[in-house]
Amino acid sequence: MNDRALGIFDSGVGGLTVVRAVQELLPAEDIVYLGDTARVPYGSKSPETIRRFADEDVRYLLTKQVKAIVVACNTATAHALPMLKQRYQVPIVGVIEAGVEAVLADPQAQRVGIIATRGTIASHAYQHALALRRTGMVIVEQATPLLVPLIEENWLDHPATRQVLETYLKPLLEKKIDTLLLACTHYPLMVPLLQEMIGDRIRIVDSATTCALHLQQELSRLEMLAESEREGDLSIGLTDLSEQFEILAQRFLRKCPPQIERVEV
Amino acid sequence: MNDRALGIFDSGVGGLTVVRAVQELLPAEDIVYLGDTARVPYGSKSPETIRRFADEDVRYLLTKQVKAIVVACNTATAHALPMLKQRYQVPIVGVIEAGVEAVLADPQAQRVGIIATRGTIASHAYQHALALRRTGMVIVEQATPLLVPLIEENWLDHPATRQVLETYLKPLLEKKIDTLLLACTHYPLMVPLLQEMIGDRIRIVDSATTCALHLQQELSRLEMLAESEREGDLSIGLTDLSEQFEILAQRFLRKCPPQIERVEV
Repeated sequence: MNDRALGIFDSGVGGLTVVRAVQELLPAEDIVYLGDTARVPYGSKSPETIRRFADEDVRYLLTKQVKAIVVACNTATAHALPMLKQRYQVPIVGVIEAGVEAVLADPQAQRVGIIATRGTIASHAYQHALALRRTGMVIVEQATPLLVPLIEENWLDHPATRQVLETYLKPLLEKKIDTLLLACTHYPLMVPLLQEMIGDRIRIVDSATTCALHLQQELSRLEMLAESEREGDLSIGLTDLSEQFEILAQRFLRKCPPQIERVEV
Repeated sequence: MNDRALGIFDSGVGGLTVVRAVQELLPAEDIVYLGDTARVPYGSKSPETIRRFADEDVRYLLTKQVKAIVVACNTATAHALPMLKQRYQVPIVGVIEAGVEAVLADPQAQRVGIIATRGTIASHAYQHALALRRTGMVIVEQATPLLVPLIEENWLDHPATRQVLETYLKPLLEKKIDTLLLACTHYPLMVPLLQEMIGDRIRIVDSATTCALHLQQELSRLEMLAESEREGDLSIGLTDLSEQFEILAQRFLRKCPPQIERVEV
């Protein structure tokens, strides 16, 4: 048992979907969340820059004496996780391994569509991980850079959003995918519209929920879960504070966030 | 006369529309361009953070011995220009004064719509400047945060872009504007679609072209124009380099950019 906090970071506030999933599954855990809102987004930037930012984010969380770290950002996981694991001794969990496990949990999954930021798609991290684990799998990758801005505007059912999704989903549907992997922590908010547009026969796997499950297994294996009787605390630090980020935080967390602090990394 | 370079900076590559306008009007001027692509965008961030970033951008340009600085970013002009002018002795020109002058150049302009990022709109910088100069003017401000991502995707005539613009333009058209001010250096690329959607009776004023004119007047007044016989050079430094930024640079500049360097601010 270990009652020290978990550290969770993302480029912005999208990673709060992971926080929400972790709070539901592991209510006893304290969580220190860091969102690098001064430099958001990471998804359109270079691997080198993303690794530098992720390294600074981890260093910040380590000053908070966290017992483990969750990289709640697909782009940062794709480009920085191997480097971070090598550099730091604290257990570090990313969103990709969890997403891959969740896809493979269905033995029938053979044709997988992956939607993500430009950076995550360019890394081919999911494609490589899936191809290694199940041979013959058809994997269709699609960069969907307009989804984060649309979600941040809360245009979750706007005609423009449907037009954007139609364009993005067309090549995936043409390849007759059986599974759609949402490889960005923003995307869970778009599940209702996505499911409506692709129909019930395609299974949606989201990286936020699956990451919480994966974290639970890891903490249990390392005997690092918090004492189950206690009630966990959440603290949120953002590198830039604005009214807009506070509104978004509430939307991603699906409840009123605690006092948000501005922090420097 | 002064043959030292002009410094021009923006949060990313959108400011290259200003570079293009300056090159056309003042072909003899050397230009050092800085795009803070590692931290782009500024438009959704807080005034305090934008001021800090803009200050670092100016310090970088001063190490290049520039004779004058152009803030080719509406959000940075709105929030940081007064502070920068107070702090540094070098002449600093923003995009807002120029846009305001260009609107007022038409004595008939009485109902002005302004579209911009969330940050620029929140500053009310244009509204205040216009209202001070022409009483009785009706000013309608509209934050249009999805336009930058759509322009960066090059979806300049996609059905989704039309849907987005319909939503954004509706309140402006209902107020019967006679002038539409594009208060973001990305927006000039959207002029053809905008003009088609709003019709010929509404005049479009873009902040890139007007900024170049304003700069010419300032340099002339200060006797700082470069010798007219020479041919100006352009160097581009970005704080993050990626293939995507190079593609965008070419699009905004409307020609192949020179070798782009990664720089630290």
